[in-house]
Amino acid sequence: MATGALPLVRLIEQFERLPGVGKKSAQRLAFHILDMPAEKAADFANTILEAREKIKKCSVCQNLTDSETCPICQNTHRDKSTICVVENPQDILAFERTKEYNGVYHVLHGLISPMNGVGPDQLAIKELLARIGTEEVAEVIMATNPTVEGEATATYLARLIKPMNIRTTRLAYGIPVGGNLEYADEVTLYRALEGRNEM
Amino acid sequence: MATGALPLVRLIEQFERLPGVGKKSAQRLAFHILDMPAEKAADFANTILEAREKIKKCSVCQNLTDSETCPICQNTHRDKSTICVVENPQDILAFERTKEYNGVYHVLHGLISPMNGVGPDQLAIKELLARIGTEEVAEVIMATNPTVEGEATATYLARLIKPMNIRTTRLAYGIPVGGNLEYADEVTLYRALEGRNEM
Repeated sequence: MATGALPLVRLIEQFERLPGVGKKSAQRLAFHILDMPAEKAADFANTILEAREKIKKCSVCQNLTDSETCPICQNTHRDKSTICVVENPQDILAFERTKEYNGVYHVLHGLISPMNGVGPDQLAIKELLARIGTEEVAEVIMATNPTVEGEATATYLARLIKPMNIRTTRLAYGIPVGGNLEYADEVTLYRALEGRNEM
Repeated sequence: MATGALPLVRLIEQFERLPGVGKKSAQRLAFHILDMPAEKAADFANTILEAREKIKKCSVCQNLTDSETCPICQNTHRDKSTICVVENPQDILAFERTKEYNGVYHVLHGLISPMNGVGPDQLAIKELLARIGTEEVAEVIMATNPTVEGEATATYLARLIKPMNIRTTRLAYGIPVGGNLEYADEVTLYRALEGRNEM
C-alpha cells in the first residue's frame, strides 16, 4: 500500500481475513480502529483475547460457554429428555429466538462431508451417543440444515439412534412463513404439499 | 443472549460497534474468532494494539504513518510544489491507485460542517497554511468529496489560499468513466456539459 505504514497494512490484512470482509471494508474497519480512542481499541483487542481464552465447549452439549456446562444445560427448567441436534452454536441462538423450544441441544460442530474430508469421527457424535446412553432421553430432533450434508448427517444419526428405541424426528420442510408461493422453489413446494396437515 | 457466555456476548457487541457491521455479521465474525487457532486470534488482537500505538499523523501532511513523516513526504521524487488537499487518509489511497499523481497531499481529517459542530479550527487547516507559507508551493488542488460539506470546505480554503497568489484548483466534475448517460443524475450531467472540452 502506497502510504506504507506497516502496522496499518497489517491491520487491514487481518480484517481482510475475516469471513465476508472485502478489501474496501477491511480498509474502512482498520481506519475506524485508528480513529477510536486508544482505550476503546485496547478494549476491543482484549475482548478478543478474553473470549478466545475463556470460551470452551460445554461438557454436556458442546455449546460454547465460559463455564463447565452452558446456561441451557444448567437450567433446571429445561426439559432434558428432548435433545435438538444442531450443526453449530449459532443455530442454538436461532432456536432460542423462537422462545418456543424448552428442550436442550447438542452441537455437532460440523456436518459429515466426505468431499471436505469430514467423517463422523471429527464431529461430536460419540458425545451425543454417550448422552443418549446415560441420560433419560425421549426424543432426538435432527435440526441440521436442509442441505445435502445436513440431510446425510441427519440420516446417519437417525440410523444409529432409532435402534436405541428413542423417538427420532426431523424439522418440517415447507413454505417459509411470510413467503410467496410464486417464488418458492419446486422442491420446497413439493415438500410442503407432501407434509400438508388437516385444518 | 440465550447462550449466556459473557465473553462471547462482549465480543459480538464489539464487532457490532464497527461501521457497517450488523447483528448477524457481528455474530458470524465473533464465532469465526472463536474458531481460529488461539495464536491467530492473539495475532489479530496484537495487530490492533500495535497499529493503535504506533500509527500517528505525519508531521508534514497529516497522513497516517508509523514514522515522523509519511513515505510520500519522504519520497524525494515527489513534486513538493503541488499539494492535493483531501478529507481523510483513505482518499490518499484512492489517488495513489491511479498511479498518475506525483505531487504530495494534505489531509484535513474532516470537513467543515456547522451541523455537526465542526469548524475550521478542528481541521488541519492551520498546518496547511503553515506549509504554504514556508514551502515552495505552486498549486493547491482541492480534492474534497463532491458533497455540500466538501464544496463548502473547498470554497473556504480557496478564499484563504488564492490571495497568497497560489494556483488553486478543484477536481473536475463529469460523467464517471464506464458510466451510462441514462443513469447519470441531472446535476452531474449538467456539470459534464458545462465542463466540456475541445476534442
